[in-house]
Amino acid sequence: MASPVNSPRGMRDFLPADKARREHALSVIKGVYRAHGFDEIETPVVEDHARLHAGLGGDNEKLSFSILKRGIRPEQLAAATEAGDAEKLADLGLRFDLTVPLTRFYATNRADLPPVFRSLQIAPVWRAERPQKGRYRQFVQADIDIIGEAGLIAEIELVTATSQALAALGLTGCVIRINDRRILLGLLAHCGFAEETHDRALITIDKLDKIGAAGVVDELREIDAAAAERLGEVLQAVEPALEGDGIALTREAIAAVLPAGAAEEGVTNLSDLGDALAGALPEGVEVRFDPTLVRGMGYYTGTIFEVAHPGSGSSVGGGGRYDGMVGRFLGQDVPAVGFSIGFERVVDLISLPKETGPESVALVYDTDVEFADLLVLKRALIERGHRVRLEKRQKNMKALLARVVGEGFASIANVRAGMSDVDALEIRPLQS
Amino acid sequence: MASPVNSPRGMRDFLPADKARREHALSVIKGVYRAHGFDEIETPVVEDHARLHAGLGGDNEKLSFSILKRGIRPEQLAAATEAGDAEKLADLGLRFDLTVPLTRFYATNRADLPPVFRSLQIAPVWRAERPQKGRYRQFVQADIDIIGEAGLIAEIELVTATSQALAALGLTGCVIRINDRRILLGLLAHCGFAEETHDRALITIDKLDKIGAAGVVDELREIDAAAAERLGEVLQAVEPALEGDGIALTREAIAAVLPAGAAEEGVTNLSDLGDALAGALPEGVEVRFDPTLVRGMGYYTGTIFEVAHPGSGSSVGGGGRYDGMVGRFLGQDVPAVGFSIGFERVVDLISLPKETGPESVALVYDTDVEFADLLVLKRALIERGHRVRLEKRQKNMKALLARVVGEGFASIANVRAGMSDVDALEIRPLQS
Repeated sequence: MASPVNSPRGMRDFLPADKARREHALSVIKGVYRAHGFDEIETPVVEDHARLHAGLGGDNEKLSFSILKRGIRPEQLAAATEAGDAEKLADLGLRFDLTVPLTRFYATNRADLPPVFRSLQIAPVWRAERPQKGRYRQFVQADIDIIGEAGLIAEIELVTATSQALAALGLTGCVIRINDRRILLGLLAHCGFAEETHDRALITIDKLDKIGAAGVVDELREIDAAAAERLGEVLQAVEPALEGDGIALTREAIAAVLPAGAAEEGVTNLSDLGDALAGALPEGVEVRFDPTLVRGMGYYTGTIFEVAHPGSGSSVGGGGRYDGMVGRFLGQDVPAVGFSIGFERVVDLISLPKETGPESVALVYDTDVEFADLLVLKRALIERGHRVRLEKRQKNMKALLARVVGEGFASIANVRAGMSDVDALEIRPLQS
Repeated sequence: MASPVNSPRGMRDFLPADKARREHALSVIKGVYRAHGFDEIETPVVEDHARLHAGLGGDNEKLSFSILKRGIRPEQLAAATEAGDAEKLADLGLRFDLTVPLTRFYATNRADLPPVFRSLQIAPVWRAERPQKGRYRQFVQADIDIIGEAGLIAEIELVTATSQALAALGLTGCVIRINDRRILLGLLAHCGFAEETHDRALITIDKLDKIGAAGVVDELREIDAAAAERLGEVLQAVEPALEGDGIALTREAIAAVLPAGAAEEGVTNLSDLGDALAGALPEGVEVRFDPTLVRGMGYYTGTIFEVAHPGSGSSVGGGGRYDGMVGRFLGQDVPAVGFSIGFERVVDLISLPKETGPESVALVYDTDVEFADLLVLKRALIERGHRVRLEKRQKNMKALLARVVGEGFASIANVRAGMSDVDALEIRPLQS
């Protein structure tokens, strides 16, 4: 075997303490989303190669891991490619997001799903990125999506459910920045950018927090100098508010920072959303209008959101409306909107709640204890709701106790030969 | 896009009802194993290609899906293989079991794990099998393993924990058949098979339920005719018991069916196991000695188990001691024993428990209801512990009600314009 034994590059092992923290976060998120009427589904981790490279995944498509066709092993590749069918050798790939599989799932199973389908998926995705701090090749996404609802109630349900999930995780200080693609496009048109330059201009505006307003205007000048100047004025007007407390999601506040009549449809959408959300969000979560929010993916068509948290440098969640995408698999338009929590970032921000209920017990047994007696005691404790870990008595009991405390055990009981009555066990708390 | 939109061949989508059943089974199994002191871990779904093909996975190695190296896309394969490094093009593979990754995990993280490590993994594995009824290319295994304990207490904990998990799932009538590799090898030696033929002979004995005792003896004659006859006599003596109520896991019962002195170490091991388990198993689970049990994998070194359930044609679980395997990654012997529940088979056998606690409510709203009012009601119901699904009123209410009943909703409440007081909501039960 290869000498240093490590997990594959860019992918992580989760030890018991890590895994417990992840399971806690999972169960909190699932519980909230379930209460909000979302239904959990699961798709295979792989999809057809062609589907993963159909242009819906943006830059992520390039990061897809491809899988060799059944039965072809690496050492047979040379012979197989000589036979001239190299393109057909990899027919599957690991999914790079949960949205492409969801649209495929919906197209496959539509007849068995409700007309408005509220989907919950919490599952790993894979991207062949260059590994770096905080960026992994296997990571979990937590997505809710509502498919089949064109009305704003879909956005409202997504934002309230996600806010509740973040609050239930104990994340306070979350700000959900909201924009509408139609506002962005309206702004660009209003400033004078020709329609065919809009995609390119959005890519530039998306760099705002990296290169600043001046940098954005500089880059936009390459497209259209006069239009770039006009957009620069809008950015200048907006910047103080964005750097301060942000812009409220109300008609007045939105209208105050946008040129009059620039994007009526989007403004109405967002102010209606703001009205509905007022008073509906849990403490610790706020919504703000951000006309400079772009979100990278080209498939968004309306409302877009992104969640910031003071403890994380990058966003801890995001999403938006993507009405055109599901239709590509169905040959029929289906409205859809989704919100994804960045599970890995969230897990880093939470702390595990203190153990409640009956305590976990390390049952330390002497080597002359009969196994049958030990089993009786273990079973009796488990039936009373304890978590029980057997530990053989060792010379260095101090080291043993320190270890089981580190492993989360709250109490200890000693078992001597002949003991089999659980009521005679003395369960003592351990100091942590 | 390709016209019929399906999940990849041999892999399944799980719709909400399927997923709920799976999540229920997962949480029951995890709860029991956690109470029994096992710690959940997680490894990446992929491992290095070389590690997956190191000879530890038996026939499953051939079924491993290989993954193309980062950055190589199928259309580049021809050029890449011409460059002459075809073998290096696929450096990862999807795991085909949880045991190979566990041994790698243990070698990687040993310094951070307790000396006796009780591992729980419930996770998918992938095998490129020809799809057929009940056999999938992605399926979940639920494994517990104890690494670092050479004594019988490890087997005892695995069998009691697994029995409790099966009982908690509501599976009654489970029989755990138990054998010891040393009994098998002792028997073969006693009958006169040369040591170098033992592996081949075991493969034949493993076919007992397919080809019967006569078939086994026929095939063994090709190895050694006289030895085959002697083994035939043992099989004949054992067969009536195996076809009836089985052989008790006691020294007397074990000795009664084996030639005297054939495999003393294995007999002592199993009769001690039987003594410890007597009275320790939950109702609905029994243990039996089966001297013909082989288990396919070559890495087993001592006790082996397999669980049968009357509702399933094949085994619903199995495992055994594999003391030599972890050492292959460490260069140092570490004892280990594992027990795996066949999650897919178990899920097919269980039924979901009736919903308990506050009922789930379909909140049917008129189109003129204000979203803000709707949110207040939804939130109040959720805070009272309900699961809430919003449903827009439609003309055909009969169809809507039938659908939400099918989706598991237990009650309904109508929301008219102007309502925002949850206490004024009339929650009515739905007939299912």
